[in-house]
Amino acid sequence: MPRNDANISMSVIKRMPRYYRFLGNLKKDGVERISSKELSVRMGLTASQIRQDLNCFGGFGQQGYGYNVAQLYDEIGAILGVSNGCKAIIIGVGNLGKALASHIRFSNSGFETIGLFDIDPRLIGETVNGLEIRAVDDLADFCREEQPVAAVLCVPESAAHSIVSVLVENGVRSFWNFSHFDIEAEFPQTISENVHLKDSLMTLSYRITHQTEKED
Amino acid sequence: MPRNDANISMSVIKRMPRYYRFLGNLKKDGVERISSKELSVRMGLTASQIRQDLNCFGGFGQQGYGYNVAQLYDEIGAILGVSNGCKAIIIGVGNLGKALASHIRFSNSGFETIGLFDIDPRLIGETVNGLEIRAVDDLADFCREEQPVAAVLCVPESAAHSIVSVLVENGVRSFWNFSHFDIEAEFPQTISENVHLKDSLMTLSYRITHQTEKED
Repeated sequence: MPRNDANISMSVIKRMPRYYRFLGNLKKDGVERISSKELSVRMGLTASQIRQDLNCFGGFGQQGYGYNVAQLYDEIGAILGVSNGCKAIIIGVGNLGKALASHIRFSNSGFETIGLFDIDPRLIGETVNGLEIRAVDDLADFCREEQPVAAVLCVPESAAHSIVSVLVENGVRSFWNFSHFDIEAEFPQTISENVHLKDSLMTLSYRITHQTEKED
Repeated sequence: MPRNDANISMSVIKRMPRYYRFLGNLKKDGVERISSKELSVRMGLTASQIRQDLNCFGGFGQQGYGYNVAQLYDEIGAILGVSNGCKAIIIGVGNLGKALASHIRFSNSGFETIGLFDIDPRLIGETVNGLEIRAVDDLADFCREEQPVAAVLCVPESAAHSIVSVLVENGVRSFWNFSHFDIEAEFPQTISENVHLKDSLMTLSYRITHQTEKED
């Protein structure tokens, strides 16, 4: 059960999905109980780090007895809100938007997609996962009627500002942001989880470039 | 110019693409010179952090004179290897793989895609960005002949182990990994930049869930 969560650091929060993933795999493999030591070896963390992280949420293990895998999995799932079915819309339904639509649909990660939007007339009217792609012009009306909580932003940086303005004006406060537009800087009352694919690719490029230099 | 880069921390390295992005935007806006103070305000970092980060690579600014935007942009680009055109292949060419193929093509981020692979017979033979999708069975032969340096992995976790084995055996050492398979744990001689979309989505779910609780 979540408690006192206002003071939990983002680095702890960002590790929780990874615990959830590892515990899910253990559960699938039929493991019923695991010590923080065993879990630490599998996850490449220290046992004390794991105990500290889980203690932020109230502590789950029993001294000398380890964690009940299925129970911890469910409790972390509840902390993460994986069953919340939070209403989300996707703006920009090219290949990336389509990939994310499937991802949300199959991943039990807290969201349910209720609308898809694009500006490309060739895409509008097309059906993806049972949802028809709508025109971005209909976004404001849709948000007022359906009250989505989150938006997945897969649009170019140049289009992002005006779209986010419309969304925020119509009650959307949370973003899964694949654009390079810095939403939280412009709209401080929002929550934004940014995925910068280009930054990630450049980091790989750096590591390849400089490892090669080292090996020469 | 990169120097002594073996000791540069990953957190510094991971900030470099962001510098590159901000400097690119400044350059586009016609800004010729910027102080670390001004840059820090725009980027939400401290000026001293920026000076420290850039000093890792030898330092670029002149005291009291600021940074030459175009020059710093080019130098950080060289550090990141954005013009290297490192040969890459993509395994798994569903919507995500297709999105990443376009991304690599248009983003000037150090890579050039030379091959696309899938197991789905309906996709094999299809052309994406001028490249024909090949069968995964042809992967080993292709790698021996074309010697790609990096692979983009967009396959389910269950398929990842065997595909990575084939790739590593045939000389591929660097991965942009969208699967949940922990490549570096199994193949310590590799470099892997992991993008865990599901973890990112769950982090957003957590933040929405717990912000809502706080507001109640």
